[in-house]
Amino acid sequence: MSLPGTCQCAVMDAFNRPLALREFPLPERLEPGELIVEVDLSGICGTDVHLHKGQLAIPLPLILGHETTGRIAALGDSGATDFVGRPLRIGDRIAFTVGRTCRSCRYCRVYRLPSRCEKRSAYGVNISCRQAPHLLGGYGQYHFLYADTAVFRLPDDLPSEAVVGAGCALVTAIHGFEKLAMQWAESVVIQGAGPVGLAALAIAKEAGARPLIVVGGPRDRLERCRRFGADLTIDIDEVPDPDARRRLVLDATGGIGADVVVECVGIPNAVAEGWDLCRDGGKYLVLGHYGDAGPTMLNPHVITRKELTVLGTWGSEPQHWITSLEFLRTRRDAYPFHELITHRFSLAQANEALAAVADWQTGKAVIVPNGQA
Amino acid sequence: MSLPGTCQCAVMDAFNRPLALREFPLPERLEPGELIVEVDLSGICGTDVHLHKGQLAIPLPLILGHETTGRIAALGDSGATDFVGRPLRIGDRIAFTVGRTCRSCRYCRVYRLPSRCEKRSAYGVNISCRQAPHLLGGYGQYHFLYADTAVFRLPDDLPSEAVVGAGCALVTAIHGFEKLAMQWAESVVIQGAGPVGLAALAIAKEAGARPLIVVGGPRDRLERCRRFGADLTIDIDEVPDPDARRRLVLDATGGIGADVVVECVGIPNAVAEGWDLCRDGGKYLVLGHYGDAGPTMLNPHVITRKELTVLGTWGSEPQHWITSLEFLRTRRDAYPFHELITHRFSLAQANEALAAVADWQTGKAVIVPNGQA
Amino acid sequence: MSLPGTCQCAVMDAFNRPLALREFPLPERLEPGELIVEVDLSGICGTDVHLHKGQLAIPLPLILGHETTGRIAALGDSGATDFVGRPLRIGDRIAFTVGRTCRSCRYCRVYRLPSRCEKRSAYGVNISCRQAPHLLGGYGQYHFLYADTAVFRLPDDLPSEAVVGAGCALVTAIHGFEKLAMQWAESVVIQGAGPVGLAALAIAKEAGARPLIVVGGPRDRLERCRRFGADLTIDIDEVPDPDARRRLVLDATGGIGADVVVECVGIPNAVAEGWDLCRDGGKYLVLGHYGDAGPTMLNPHVITRKELTVLGTWGSEPQHWITSLEFLRTRRDAYPFHELITHRFSLAQANEALAAVADWQTGKAVIVPNGQA
Amino acid sequence: MSLPGTCQCAVMDAFNRPLALREFPLPERLEPGELIVEVDLSGICGTDVHLHKGQLAIPLPLILGHETTGRIAALGDSGATDFVGRPLRIGDRIAFTVGRTCRSCRYCRVYRLPSRCEKRSAYGVNISCRQAPHLLGGYGQYHFLYADTAVFRLPDDLPSEAVVGAGCALVTAIHGFEKLAMQWAESVVIQGAGPVGLAALAIAKEAGARPLIVVGGPRDRLERCRRFGADLTIDIDEVPDPDARRRLVLDATGGIGADVVVECVGIPNAVAEGWDLCRDGGKYLVLGHYGDAGPTMLNPHVITRKELTVLGTWGSEPQHWITSLEFLRTRRDAYPFHELITHRFSLAQANEALAAVADWQTGKAVIVPNGQA
Repeated sequence: MSLPGTCQCAVMDAFNRPLALREFPLPERLEPGELIVEVDLSGICGTDVHLHKGQLAIPLPLILGHETTGRIAALGDSGATDFVGRPLRIGDRIAFTVGRTCRSCRYCRVYRLPSRCEKRSAYGVNISCRQAPHLLGGYGQYHFLYADTAVFRLPDDLPSEAVVGAGCALVTAIHGFEKLAMQWAESVVIQGAGPVGLAALAIAKEAGARPLIVVGGPRDRLERCRRFGADLTIDIDEVPDPDARRRLVLDATGGIGADVVVECVGIPNAVAEGWDLCRDGGKYLVLGHYGDAGPTMLNPHVITRKELTVLGTWGSEPQHWITSLEFLRTRRDAYPFHELITHRFSLAQANEALAAVADWQTGKAVIVPNGQA
Repeated sequence: MSLPGTCQCAVMDAFNRPLALREFPLPERLEPGELIVEVDLSGICGTDVHLHKGQLAIPLPLILGHETTGRIAALGDSGATDFVGRPLRIGDRIAFTVGRTCRSCRYCRVYRLPSRCEKRSAYGVNISCRQAPHLLGGYGQYHFLYADTAVFRLPDDLPSEAVVGAGCALVTAIHGFEKLAMQWAESVVIQGAGPVGLAALAIAKEAGARPLIVVGGPRDRLERCRRFGADLTIDIDEVPDPDARRRLVLDATGGIGADVVVECVGIPNAVAEGWDLCRDGGKYLVLGHYGDAGPTMLNPHVITRKELTVLGTWGSEPQHWITSLEFLRTRRDAYPFHELITHRFSLAQANEALAAVADWQTGKAVIVPNGQA
Repeated sequence: MSLPGTCQCAVMDAFNRPLALREFPLPERLEPGELIVEVDLSGICGTDVHLHKGQLAIPLPLILGHETTGRIAALGDSGATDFVGRPLRIGDRIAFTVGRTCRSCRYCRVYRLPSRCEKRSAYGVNISCRQAPHLLGGYGQYHFLYADTAVFRLPDDLPSEAVVGAGCALVTAIHGFEKLAMQWAESVVIQGAGPVGLAALAIAKEAGARPLIVVGGPRDRLERCRRFGADLTIDIDEVPDPDARRRLVLDATGGIGADVVVECVGIPNAVAEGWDLCRDGGKYLVLGHYGDAGPTMLNPHVITRKELTVLGTWGSEPQHWITSLEFLRTRRDAYPFHELITHRFSLAQANEALAAVADWQTGKAVIVPNGQA
Repeated sequence: MSLPGTCQCAVMDAFNRPLALREFPLPERLEPGELIVEVDLSGICGTDVHLHKGQLAIPLPLILGHETTGRIAALGDSGATDFVGRPLRIGDRIAFTVGRTCRSCRYCRVYRLPSRCEKRSAYGVNISCRQAPHLLGGYGQYHFLYADTAVFRLPDDLPSEAVVGAGCALVTAIHGFEKLAMQWAESVVIQGAGPVGLAALAIAKEAGARPLIVVGGPRDRLERCRRFGADLTIDIDEVPDPDARRRLVLDATGGIGADVVVECVGIPNAVAEGWDLCRDGGKYLVLGHYGDAGPTMLNPHVITRKELTVLGTWGSEPQHWITSLEFLRTRRDAYPFHELITHRFSLAQANEALAAVADWQTGKAVIVPNGQA
């Protein structure tokens, strides 16, 4: 695979302004462990829309894109290995974690909580493209990876579409369920039918939730939820009254509420409703609040009186990718994440792509930077 | 022990009105397992003040008092047993749980959560004295106990003062720490220096917290906290700025926040401050919100970003008394709960007693219904 | 439903001797909460064979049978309720837990471990039929139930065949998995393809095990395991060498061993092999050693070096029946326990039935005491 | 600090043969992150005796010694940092973990179990001194540390004697108790009064065990156990009958057995006795079987019937040192590990030192390679 001298990327120079196509040089020399990836698919996450609106303090200019698959186009002299130490080769099809951690702070070292690394950074989110090696986000023809990146070779029977279709939502949900320690046969309510909600639903189904209920919308997303295994969906458009929704959940859980409720909405006032949907002694996972949407009125007395356990997890850790990829590979029939991709864009259409996602027109939208979109 | 035909109790006929001394007949006949207790000490809990103000929906008339010790004055024909099946005898000095549970609902039977029994009731809290056997609260000379009550014989080397000094706060805290599963050598912040805070402090100390920090007041309560083992106390009167308090906690925890924070305040806005005092990945126990003080502004994003575990427990279960009494018996030197009793009142002084507690004049106040106060 | 004055039961008067049909009077009067059940199906458990051989110290004479369904033929004057407090009526089809607990010992009260009640007894296992009410085991036309028995009404869409087909194995496995706290996507090996192994397999499958491996035999049982969802079965007849079996498990688990291994064999030397099949840090559940088959050579160093977690659970608790019955009702297509019944016997054929089970001729064998077998 | 060109080490060339003093060159050049430590104290662990007897397959020649403190004598050009990223300087007094892990295998990366790293090695245990940099064990004047070593700067108020007095036993016990998740107020039996037993005792005491019982010997070790906080010690010389010991434990635990039993003996048949000392539902930690002392007769039925949880942990992880050092620093009065050092030897006396430990003549023995012993 011979590399070109330069490649194109879609760059965000300012918030709320169109991304601009720009030419960057490819690195001439790679250190041991470093990789250059020819991008295959670059997923557009809802978070990209928020980043583009300036809702997080991030450095500019920036190449967006944190859900990427591609093929290794070049690697450092003494080679490189995947996350569990197996050698990587030119041409390998891979995915990778965008989060980079320092491996030396107390969170990395003492608390086993690298997702809270004090120096964490993420390709496509908060690593600027200003300096070389520039190619540090997914909306581009090539992507540079530092030696500390967790890389995963994709098995032949796992299409890239499944990986990008599941996106960062699936590993986020895997992280959350690891902490949740849901038991089989527990009743589960998922609040939200978007990517995170769908991923949480798939895991809860796989883990033996019964009944498995989704509260969300719109209608076509709920239909997909039923296809992925929801026993009951409650459409917030059809049942706009939270009390009425609660009665439906009580009806489905022997009048007592759900053992587990998973918040996948990202809207603060969903939390109070969610606590109401739990049975006493139940568990509540706040999974959808990666972004800071501000405070809301919540009653601490409810936590005491109902003896709730309220849990949070943030992003994911590299080992969650192991679980994710194996799950996608083996359970594709039951949970067809690869079918979620409804819209494909070229790199030149990156602004259209963002707009389509912002308008909720899409299932999953992807950029195909090197080919026919 | 020969029983009188009648006895006196202090009765609450209406909220915010003086309690009235009233004469009630003692039951003439006891069913198997039922007891009559000659009351020794009757603790006045801060909750009694709230009940007297009408802040909970409870039936009237009512005899307050849910922290009671006494001696068995009579028992049903075929005898009675303590909580773990040992026979009880006339003259035994006892304590008992005021909560009564149905033992047949899903919370009692399926979820192992009797503290959330669907039909729970509590002597001195929500069982009216209108009907026989009348004597259903602690502010009286005698107390009737139904056969389903969990009764604990007090060992000779455990004074009643220790039991009532610790009050319902200690078993509440034991319940909370059971769920919290604090590990030794974790750093712990206790929010609040009242009875629940002091009980939580004692348990955290005993469980190896290091450092152990109290945020609260006033000064004399914090002094007592240091005597019970606090490594650091932060006086909210001296440090009124929450940010300044947070910096003190960070200083004491290597700049990272506490592994565990326990809310023992009952004021909703303490919760947001408490989340700020946790390190990422930390645990937060909402222990002080037995009463419903209403909602407050809380940010769910904090739970996600900091990967918190927020836990609630409600009241206690009978087995927590086993731990409590053995702890009070064996660790009296380190945690002198018996010294907390600062004020003793006769039954006729019940209104003065309530007023003294309401005005925060007291350490622990008790009514001595049958003797020299 | 009018009751006969007497009924027939198959009675074990001595170990290793034929059971004898005997006539017993039905109780003339029932205390509140007591029931008489007209037996529908009485399952024959492998344990019955062991009991018949005298491998447990139990009182004689005894009516065997601890897997029973039937219809309520009579109930005490003031009625009776099911396990969660709903009223029972004549004609209701029910199942019940055979274990009786004292509800007052430390295991019942303090440790939340009623399966280890100090005074536990069990219908059909160790409650003799010598004294009235006699009808205290399943191999009879009628079964007497004390008021403390946990009774479960069977929903119309749950056939008795499913309940008895799953037998006591399913609730035993539910108890074990509750303690095991298996996480979805863990790799699981089940040692043993008998009733307990099949039940453990069903739960592990439902809980998202991947891969799910059974080591056992004979061939037809392994075929059933595959039908219930095993990804791989290893036939101990075809692969008699434990090292070879271990290599197959390593091959199926990325060379590392299983996250979870569940012992469902009851043969002591299976345990050392099972520890070998675990990955380091794995969990091992000893589920098949209800009977005492004596000690075996085990190396404690393996527990330390591999950092294993080895867990045991004993029998079941009543709430496991709630999970069991709902599971059988809703997941009948995936796990057709009702199809396991291969042999039906009349009460007069009880000795043939025991012999058939002892010879491993049967899937599940049942006695039909009141009808056409 | 100017370095000599060479230094002396005590080298094991063959098992069961005297160690020989040998001269090694100090490295001339250090890579980034590498350190040379001038050894202050080098503890002699009982494991060293086993290694010297050839009970583990290890490469020779070897410099023994895995409990070492010293001062940094040299560091690589671009400096070095301690375990949590703080810069290290010449002259810093330090301790370090001897275990080295690959940080890329599944145990390091996926299972969060670096103690089971597939490529783990340990200074002083299985890294030969044959090749440069040679200085790879504690029995020498200088110790070389690779850049991947977890290094801990010792605070001024923590004497080296405390660190080496506690030795590898304390971090081993910290690891074990982390998995054990003992709750305060649980009854605990420690089997064994050696270094691991004493360390486990200190942690259990600190964590609120009550009562805290040691079964072991000889008499002077038990005396030390009482000084460290044991409520009851049972001398196996005075009470040689395991049944009699069990009765003493039952007497001290309300007739029911201990909530937690910790094996710190390393003799296989202690395990069966330990299971007998647990109450039903209790936890058993196998902590003393770092060495493989072979199998013993154990009854799996006991695990099932008593519903035990049997846990193992192996060695320690670097973060356990954080807990260990802070514990030693702050709790020195209660647990005077620094007083355990009874014997000091020069490097030339290394063989005498090993012999003294082998003969159980010592509390803790140390080599002082650079000074007056």
